[in-house]
Amino acid sequence: MTDCVFCKIISGNVPSYMVYENDAVFAFLDAKPVNNGHTLVVPKEHFSNLYELPDSLISKLSIAIRDLSVSIKKAMNADGINIEMNNDAVAGQVIFHAHFHIIPRFDGDGLRHLPGKEFSKEKMEEILGKIKST
Amino acid sequence: MTDCVFCKIISGNVPSYMVYENDAVFAFLDAKPVNNGHTLVVPKEHFSNLYELPDSLISKLSIAIRDLSVSIKKAMNADGINIEMNNDAVAGQVIFHAHFHIIPRFDGDGLRHLPGKEFSKEKMEEILGKIKST
Repeated sequence: MTDCVFCKIISGNVPSYMVYENDAVFAFLDAKPVNNGHTLVVPKEHFSNLYELPDSLISKLSIAIRDLSVSIKKAMNADGINIEMNNDAVAGQVIFHAHFHIIPRFDGDGLRHLPGKEFSKEKMEEILGKIKST
Repeated sequence: MTDCVFCKIISGNVPSYMVYENDAVFAFLDAKPVNNGHTLVVPKEHFSNLYELPDSLISKLSIAIRDLSVSIKKAMNADGINIEMNNDAVAGQVIFHAHFHIIPRFDGDGLRHLPGKEFSKEKMEEILGKIKST
């Protein structure tokens, strides 16, 4: 896609710190890292988000994410790894080329997680009913 | 694994709000949801985290996550979806049975994302060197 910055990175028309590539997958350092070693993993072919990724491609992406998580954790001497993917603007997606974040975590890095709630049994059953009926 | 609560949920020995299952994958509502429709997707076979998941299983999980994301977004009338996976305690993992979060997002839900930094070219190259040498 001609106006997509990630497509330009993949084609080499925009520079990046490339971490890894294979026939279907490209990985590079996030330009605004949450922590050292924060890496983005993207399909070489343009898809806007998770919803559209074909089976074979999502399989290749997830295997690359697993392998890169192991190597990045080791390389950064990290204590853990978060995988994150934002789909649609309200979820924090800024570039509309599907991408997965690999975020190394370190003891005491102070990053906060999303807060959980507690719902009633009735509320949980209502939600379940909606999901199961789609 | 006998002392794993997710294994007990999968076997039916601990109750859950089951959303979906196939031969390899089980999905159920998170007991402490960040938002309505917050669902966990887990392998039926016990693996502690992402690092250990075999190729065929991670493929099945990621395809189920995509399909469930589409149906949960529709069912909840959500505006977006976050996928998150926490690996190791420091990354927020509490149950050591690999699990992916599907978190529906809504306009104005007020959830905050992890803040990004800007690193120098030298710092980015140092990090890249470490990752590429592993």
